[in-house]
Amino acid sequence: MEFIIVSLVQNIDMKIVIIGAVAAGAKAAAKSKRLLPDAEVVIYTKEENISYSACGLPYYIEGNFEDADKLIVRTISDFESKGIKVFNKHEVTAIHPDKKEITVSNLVSGEKFVTSYDKLLIATGAVPYIPDIKNREIKGIYTLKTIDDGINIRNRMLSSKRAVILGGGYIGLELLEAFMQNGLSITLLERNHSIMNSFDEDMASLISAYILKNYGDKINIITSAEVVEFLGEESITGVKLANSHTINTEMTVICSGVTPVVNLARDAGIELGQSGAIKVNSRMLTNIPDIYAAGDCVEKINMISDTPMWIPLGSTANKEGRCAALNMCGTVDDFEGILGSAVTRFMDMTMSRTGLSSKVAESLGYDVVSAIVTKRDKAGYMPAVGYVILKILADRRSHKILGAQSIGSGDADKRINTLSTGLIRGMTVEELNDADMTYAPPYSTSIDPLIDAARILKDKLSCCTN
Amino acid sequence: MEFIIVSLVQNIDMKIVIIGAVAAGAKAAAKSKRLLPDAEVVIYTKEENISYSACGLPYYIEGNFEDADKLIVRTISDFESKGIKVFNKHEVTAIHPDKKEITVSNLVSGEKFVTSYDKLLIATGAVPYIPDIKNREIKGIYTLKTIDDGINIRNRMLSSKRAVILGGGYIGLELLEAFMQNGLSITLLERNHSIMNSFDEDMASLISAYILKNYGDKINIITSAEVVEFLGEESITGVKLANSHTINTEMTVICSGVTPVVNLARDAGIELGQSGAIKVNSRMLTNIPDIYAAGDCVEKINMISDTPMWIPLGSTANKEGRCAALNMCGTVDDFEGILGSAVTRFMDMTMSRTGLSSKVAESLGYDVVSAIVTKRDKAGYMPAVGYVILKILADRRSHKILGAQSIGSGDADKRINTLSTGLIRGMTVEELNDADMTYAPPYSTSIDPLIDAARILKDKLSCCTN
Repeated sequence: MEFIIVSLVQNIDMKIVIIGAVAAGAKAAAKSKRLLPDAEVVIYTKEENISYSACGLPYYIEGNFEDADKLIVRTISDFESKGIKVFNKHEVTAIHPDKKEITVSNLVSGEKFVTSYDKLLIATGAVPYIPDIKNREIKGIYTLKTIDDGINIRNRMLSSKRAVILGGGYIGLELLEAFMQNGLSITLLERNHSIMNSFDEDMASLISAYILKNYGDKINIITSAEVVEFLGEESITGVKLANSHTINTEMTVICSGVTPVVNLARDAGIELGQSGAIKVNSRMLTNIPDIYAAGDCVEKINMISDTPMWIPLGSTANKEGRCAALNMCGTVDDFEGILGSAVTRFMDMTMSRTGLSSKVAESLGYDVVSAIVTKRDKAGYMPAVGYVILKILADRRSHKILGAQSIGSGDADKRINTLSTGLIRGMTVEELNDADMTYAPPYSTSIDPLIDAARILKDKLSCCTN
Repeated sequence: MEFIIVSLVQNIDMKIVIIGAVAAGAKAAAKSKRLLPDAEVVIYTKEENISYSACGLPYYIEGNFEDADKLIVRTISDFESKGIKVFNKHEVTAIHPDKKEITVSNLVSGEKFVTSYDKLLIATGAVPYIPDIKNREIKGIYTLKTIDDGINIRNRMLSSKRAVILGGGYIGLELLEAFMQNGLSITLLERNHSIMNSFDEDMASLISAYILKNYGDKINIITSAEVVEFLGEESITGVKLANSHTINTEMTVICSGVTPVVNLARDAGIELGQSGAIKVNSRMLTNIPDIYAAGDCVEKINMISDTPMWIPLGSTANKEGRCAALNMCGTVDDFEGILGSAVTRFMDMTMSRTGLSSKVAESLGYDVVSAIVTKRDKAGYMPAVGYVILKILADRRSHKILGAQSIGSGDADKRINTLSTGLIRGMTVEELNDADMTYAPPYSTSIDPLIDAARILKDKLSCCTN
């Protein structure tokens, strides 16, 4: 619950400084200025753009829309018109907590200066993880983070016939669709046993099977692939694997995950969590007074296991940015944590998940029981019936639901979201069995796949307690 | 939790008799036979068909599929092949609890007989409510309950140019779409102030406005309409209102709601609830030992208010039938209640709701606070963006969410279902604000409308507690 403690902080001299402004930073700046119109709110960012939808980049590359500027949620002028000062192409190089100051470097002029803060928010985000591969510097090798990255990849794609994608996670699969829809032949290289590692292996292999069955003429997927060298003189011509196998290509995108940007925080004595991301309390405060952190650079609490976890997602960054702003401005607000709910698509297949995967749950000591249901997504006599494959995991001891994954041409995402609000309150299998979902023939089957899965789990759990 | 107490009931002489077999009865019969393969399971039904999807009838009438038999989930032969005895066109005319017998009348031969039961399930369902209107007996006036009704309405529709629908609830709107898609001009007459009465008036008027704005050339909606007479000699030619206004028509369907079939139960001394439907406990047991009831003839407990309510829905009937079967067969199972979650569509507009409406909540003594959010259903730069209008109601004292309604061309149904699992655990506004939903540009906005609504409610509630 929020309580406005106005007297403490409504100080016209208040200066809120925010480092980084993609999602968490941009949200925090706008919210802070709304809460305390007289405060000085200043943003520093290394990047050119602020407040953009990085999640939309693959769809821009695919050609779902033409103007990359559509990804900009709010421009620098939008912020400035609200009285927020924005310094783009400015890098904060040091934080001095004892003096409540930061050192800033103007990346264009090279000028350096020191400035003060009353409240500081670190929203430095995450950067693509770059595996140690030979010849990384040649042309035609990309990562995807900024709008410029998106424009560069799209331009290269439009003149290419072949591409290699390194990494079969969300962004990897989104680019796979984008490249395929633009006529390229693609090889997807995944260093792990299976793609889509946030899904259980059985679900991930169904995803692979779907892609290869329907688009195997254009797409090749190689798992357990270790890339050792990029080939080519000036520009990339191929990728070499550890087994000496070589794949010819005109471009490569490295989508091998991301890593939190924490060096600035760590150098200032800010504590990191066991995941390596910045540790904050539920009010987004670090171990140092008046220094907050939010977004992809921050460790989160998983609401199911109540353990720290680093799952960087735009939707979370947004909420954390808001929570940080409320607390910096003197309101008490708590961010309770995350489930790791996420969704993407490949062509007509939706892939959606929430909570813990089997592997993570087992590593945390849960005794995992699971049920998989394959079902139509609406009444069988209706036109355009899709299918949903749903897997739900529960804990044998507490009967609590631990997580779920759903894929299919039907509304797989609805099932995951339906479960998610129950999960934040520790829903059991028996409670899910009593869930009251909507039913009409164009929208679902009279018994939803979630209920079917709950019944299977209920039977599995009751037979073992007798 | 279920515990199989096998010793008590696995009696080969056990005879389970079920009256009615559309949803609850059919489910109970199949489940009972699976649980106790040696038991005698007998179904009596007045109707010709059993186990059919009544909810699919409007889509059959519309022409979404051609063969009405597709609505039959399981045929009588399917049941008989599992060893379940089915007596269709047989009416149970009396229950004799003291002797554990029933009197049955064969509607074809006229023969009457008495038979015994060990466990009896009343699943007599509901029938259309017929308002007291003059000339009800002339031809061309329909109600929609059975597959034959559906076939008759479709045939009449195919040779008609004009239709009048009495009642603007779910079935009324589904038939409105069906008739319009088949080229008819339709007048929808609603006796209340607004159509779709399970929605709040503000949401219902948005539904009306959408229909009239887009299809006003084919559809007329008259609210507060009191029909006093059907006009015509042998066949209907018009409908006369209390204000003497007359509407010409070639057919009329009465969709003025339904009423539970309870006469058989009442005559046997079975207690009815305050709603007029049969009162059962959470194990679907009536006040008389060994007599259970399930489905549309039964009163339910609303999980939000914990008060009895009669909301007949196929999805609920299915669950109650299963619960009744488990208990009749000696397993302990509890059905916790309902939220009244429901969905339908009119053309590209989805209408979905769960929990209490404002009117019902206020009548139960809640101090209702609400928030309405209108938002795109996915990132604005994506193709085929729809919209969602979402209204959430909360209780000012407890901050608990009481219900929600959502309409729009976007995925309004996902939002309602997402909320529904939270509602069964008494989710507060603050908890919804922390919900972790999936986000990707093709599926949602980075801040879901549910979160926006939660934030508005949170602000409204916090400003009033200070």
